[in-house]
Amino acid sequence: MIKKYTYGKPFQTESVVVDIAAEKGQPDHGNIDLTAGFSYTFGLEDSDIVYGLGEANRGINKRGYKYISNNADNPHHHEDVYSLYASHNFIIVSGAQTFGLYFDYPSTITFDVGYTKCDELHIFCDSADLDIYVITGDSPYDITKQFRKMIGRSYIPPKFAFGFGQSRWGYKTPEDFETVARKYRENHIPIDMVYMDIDYMDSYKDFTINDDFGDFSEYVENLKKDNIRLIPIIDAGVKIEEGYDVYEEGVANNYFCKRADGSDFVAAVWPGYTHFPDVLNPEARRWFGAKYKILTDAGIEGFWNDMNEPAIFFTPEGVSELKKAMKKFIEKDETVDDVWGISGMAAGVANNPKDYASMYHNVDGEMVRHDKVHNLFGYNMTRAAGEALREISPDERRLLFSRSSYIGMHRYGGVWMGDNKSWWSHILLNIKMLPSMNMCGFLYTGADLGGFGCDTSRDLLLRWLALGVFTPLMRDHSCEGTRNQECYQFEHIEDFRNVIGVRYRLLPYIYSEYMKAALTDDMMFKPLAFEYPDDRIAAHVEDQLMLGNEIMIAPVYTQNAIGRYVYLPEDMLLVRFTADGSVEQTEMPAGHHFVEVPENEVILFVRSGKCIPVVDVAECVADIDKTTMQLIGYKNSSYMLYDDDGYTREYDLEKNCVTLNKK
Amino acid sequence: MIKKYTYGKPFQTESVVVDIAAEKGQPDHGNIDLTAGFSYTFGLEDSDIVYGLGEANRGINKRGYKYISNNADNPHHHEDVYSLYASHNFIIVSGAQTFGLYFDYPSTITFDVGYTKCDELHIFCDSADLDIYVITGDSPYDITKQFRKMIGRSYIPPKFAFGFGQSRWGYKTPEDFETVARKYRENHIPIDMVYMDIDYMDSYKDFTINDDFGDFSEYVENLKKDNIRLIPIIDAGVKIEEGYDVYEEGVANNYFCKRADGSDFVAAVWPGYTHFPDVLNPEARRWFGAKYKILTDAGIEGFWNDMNEPAIFFTPEGVSELKKAMKKFIEKDETVDDVWGISGMAAGVANNPKDYASMYHNVDGEMVRHDKVHNLFGYNMTRAAGEALREISPDERRLLFSRSSYIGMHRYGGVWMGDNKSWWSHILLNIKMLPSMNMCGFLYTGADLGGFGCDTSRDLLLRWLALGVFTPLMRDHSCEGTRNQECYQFEHIEDFRNVIGVRYRLLPYIYSEYMKAALTDDMMFKPLAFEYPDDRIAAHVEDQLMLGNEIMIAPVYTQNAIGRYVYLPEDMLLVRFTADGSVEQTEMPAGHHFVEVPENEVILFVRSGKCIPVVDVAECVADIDKTTMQLIGYKNSSYMLYDDDGYTREYDLEKNCVTLNKK
Repeated sequence: MIKKYTYGKPFQTESVVVDIAAEKGQPDHGNIDLTAGFSYTFGLEDSDIVYGLGEANRGINKRGYKYISNNADNPHHHEDVYSLYASHNFIIVSGAQTFGLYFDYPSTITFDVGYTKCDELHIFCDSADLDIYVITGDSPYDITKQFRKMIGRSYIPPKFAFGFGQSRWGYKTPEDFETVARKYRENHIPIDMVYMDIDYMDSYKDFTINDDFGDFSEYVENLKKDNIRLIPIIDAGVKIEEGYDVYEEGVANNYFCKRADGSDFVAAVWPGYTHFPDVLNPEARRWFGAKYKILTDAGIEGFWNDMNEPAIFFTPEGVSELKKAMKKFIEKDETVDDVWGISGMAAGVANNPKDYASMYHNVDGEMVRHDKVHNLFGYNMTRAAGEALREISPDERRLLFSRSSYIGMHRYGGVWMGDNKSWWSHILLNIKMLPSMNMCGFLYTGADLGGFGCDTSRDLLLRWLALGVFTPLMRDHSCEGTRNQECYQFEHIEDFRNVIGVRYRLLPYIYSEYMKAALTDDMMFKPLAFEYPDDRIAAHVEDQLMLGNEIMIAPVYTQNAIGRYVYLPEDMLLVRFTADGSVEQTEMPAGHHFVEVPENEVILFVRSGKCIPVVDVAECVADIDKTTMQLIGYKNSSYMLYDDDGYTREYDLEKNCVTLNKK
Repeated sequence: MIKKYTYGKPFQTESVVVDIAAEKGQPDHGNIDLTAGFSYTFGLEDSDIVYGLGEANRGINKRGYKYISNNADNPHHHEDVYSLYASHNFIIVSGAQTFGLYFDYPSTITFDVGYTKCDELHIFCDSADLDIYVITGDSPYDITKQFRKMIGRSYIPPKFAFGFGQSRWGYKTPEDFETVARKYRENHIPIDMVYMDIDYMDSYKDFTINDDFGDFSEYVENLKKDNIRLIPIIDAGVKIEEGYDVYEEGVANNYFCKRADGSDFVAAVWPGYTHFPDVLNPEARRWFGAKYKILTDAGIEGFWNDMNEPAIFFTPEGVSELKKAMKKFIEKDETVDDVWGISGMAAGVANNPKDYASMYHNVDGEMVRHDKVHNLFGYNMTRAAGEALREISPDERRLLFSRSSYIGMHRYGGVWMGDNKSWWSHILLNIKMLPSMNMCGFLYTGADLGGFGCDTSRDLLLRWLALGVFTPLMRDHSCEGTRNQECYQFEHIEDFRNVIGVRYRLLPYIYSEYMKAALTDDMMFKPLAFEYPDDRIAAHVEDQLMLGNEIMIAPVYTQNAIGRYVYLPEDMLLVRFTADGSVEQTEMPAGHHFVEVPENEVILFVRSGKCIPVVDVAECVADIDKTTMQLIGYKNSSYMLYDDDGYTREYDLEKNCVTLNKK
């Protein structure tokens, strides 16, 4: 049961796809106070668990901290970070009272989940212009499924996108990308994609290719012959440069975001000063989306949209103020406060709230100040691409994912979990985010394996890959200036070959579970509590996940560990993909276990009475040989396998499913 | 067996207290290469564990990362931080070959422990002027004990220092400190110390008190009547101010560090521009130490030495360069590189290597460039205080601990673990550092409970206190601008009363184990492997510790957890201090267990056949009633209790020990 409540004049985010008439009066759960902005409070019981918030910091259970929806380009995901790249305002209280809340509000909104007061959920924002959806149901899982139906079907990528991809900010020349492809193939480490970060462009200009590439179509085609697809990045900012057609068209047609005085808003990002396409304006969105055709025409089948919070390094106005302050600083004898002040101001020119309050969108002819709708930018940039790619390629799916997002964007593309770090704690954060993301519709997702920022280590990358084996987006990505992070850079390459190989052995299962989840508005990754609602221990497990209906995963995420503790809510079969390519199976009783896991192995647990398909290793998705499929699991079990050509945009769940029976 | 090898002309750090003749030739383990600076390599087996490095990042097992001894004021202790506030260059390889290495080298030295190459230990520094000690023995524990004898007896604080202390940067007025004391007493939360951070001083001038205090001796005495001691901070930098006696004496006598041209070196820290006392010069060290008498004369019995890496906010030279760069920046059209460049430069004026290379010490008449001996500053500042306090107060111990340290300083004072954060991961880091610190002689230690930087939460503070119950230094400390963190600021104060109360119930045991460890050059906290060397699981446990010879601790360090996994290497007795003040005991068999631990309880495990003394709760150390002592543990066990008056400086282990027998 979903009830909608409308306060003030909400901005239409189009995150919800069904029409629900607004109720009168107050929601059944919690209290709303409109005396200063908007405030919602609900008294939490000690045993209540709070789920949700999609791409957010901390636990599956969000209790005990504060989360602020305010899409931010902040690559330092410490424990004390309140805002990441996305705003996913769906939350479920589970306990004495169980209900879901969706706050459809595109500006800054804070979720204080028993942090300031340990027994109070407090959700508040400055302006009381929003829609609230209150969802009741049998369980958090049931509520989630109702919510998912309400926000529409999740994005579905082509099948190749379930292969492994290698990325690094710093690959620039044709040789750079070829080297990566060659090294993977030579070492027989499976791979399907090489990602192109900003340096493939000419001066960071969107939809251009640097001259080194010559005939880019031919280049793309040659790699594709080897079953490797290039996936270029597209940034939000369009370089200001005379003669650059995207820039000139945008200016001529008023397709860029504006200043209050009607001039084009200017912000520096990678290319230097740029304009932002006004993706909240449908006409500008169509125009920007159509530009992707420049690259699809060259054979490109996938994109990642970046810097679309949008990130701002600085604006001319911000630098002008900084220069004024510097002049004053130069002229006087410096105090500690002076030095810290100017240093703080210099750092503060980036992503400055003042700049976001100086930028405007044209929505149906009305000027809308950006900070009032800030969290919708990445969503609509990716919507631009998603809508365009459907037009450009009506019969074939295209890979598309974004850094920044809002609920609603899940219909157009996936997300990666942003610029994380080579930290062991980020493996765990990756685990915890998966079910929360799924709750909010984001199924195609994954973290930068090995970590983006900072220097990785061999063991960290291996352990992270052993989680990445299970995430739809499986990509090793790293930052310029950090240690080289391709699998072939490390000792004992065979270990990497084995771990990534397991992904390809499981790919039919992972693809099948993804498709079933997408086509039935279900989750692919679930907290244990969603499957075992009466199990008190399971309710508090934060480092194991249910994947589909058949398996549970429990990755190792601590350095120098020889294994880890695993809680089995029921009898399960431990399946171990060993370093020599064999598959060991051990029946384990329900309860607590310490399971040893060498760095070069992958483990999973098959639930009682279930089985999963496993195929022989292939070096790319296209080479997977379905005739090698065997079922691993319990006797007399069956599995419903979904499969299709991997490109079709029209999905027939029944026709594409087949039941496999294990003797 | 200890062998010493000398390369070049080592600086005499006085970290080692025994005379060992240098060997000729090469050490038996590993290879030394002097072709470019100094390099030591040793081939690691997969199963080798590497212990040591004292106050350092990451695990008890240091494998898989890089650690750089370069004392640094960096409060952001992320996983990727190489340098903390201390340099403790003692390391043990445990495995196929087991041996210890101590690199007595006071400048930057890097320990790459299987990070760059996963099977190589690589230790290197720029200059081949150092002493190496190679220690062989029966086990890592045996090697540690040999090392500890070699570096001399650890510092012993007065008994009151084992009570709980409250601190916060921001307490300023007499009322501020009184309020803290009163609130604790009113709420019957035990407390023995209130710490005074920099604002108690007059304009941050060392050894001054701001005028608000009036008669400081009377103020100190009044609080002491309530069994609360004030513990003021002393910073490294002496404010440049005409008429300030410490400044004037230092200048007149050349007691400050110099520039190359012989002028006094100038660096800005909290007071603005300051000079650093040249604590490597014995005469200056005596002079600076004698200043502590100003405060001991007012009744002060303890100090914490801060900012003694030494931290440098900036120097006049650094700011002058920055201003020049700003002028250029102002005059040109800004590029992304320009803005990042000037912003980076502004941030880079702090702790700038250029400044450390421009500062000089006078060591026996010779000018020694600071960066060549950088890691000795905090050590010798605390040595100044420690030596002075022994002269000022020959019969009574004084509390003294430091932020920065080097091995050798452990004889003069303790250390706190630096400016940590309100992060759950820092509870675990706190656990992991304890045995490593003990290996290097630092017994009196603890972390800022609740976290220094960032906003804490009620549950984080409670869980951290439940670890702090066991650490010799038990202090709640927080940073100005963060959420108030005193126990009485949160809901359900009784939970804090109970958890801190457990500290006082265990205080006779904690004091006894501390004293026995100090007087026999032993560790108080040990990795499980040191007690159970043949237990492969125990060898990899990173989140449990042996405390003394009787108990094992296993604190909860994850948010929203209802308990945690605990590995028992032998049968043990789970002792649970419950919220109602009772003590529950449960025998548990060796093996893996999931143990539930509510937030308001403290648990510990008594080893097979052992017992520990427990007394009734008291609200301060002086009020502990030994007649309430009972023994908790196994039947027919005994415990050797050390006790003394808590002040005596002459220790008689035999006379002060009594064997208690449990029926």
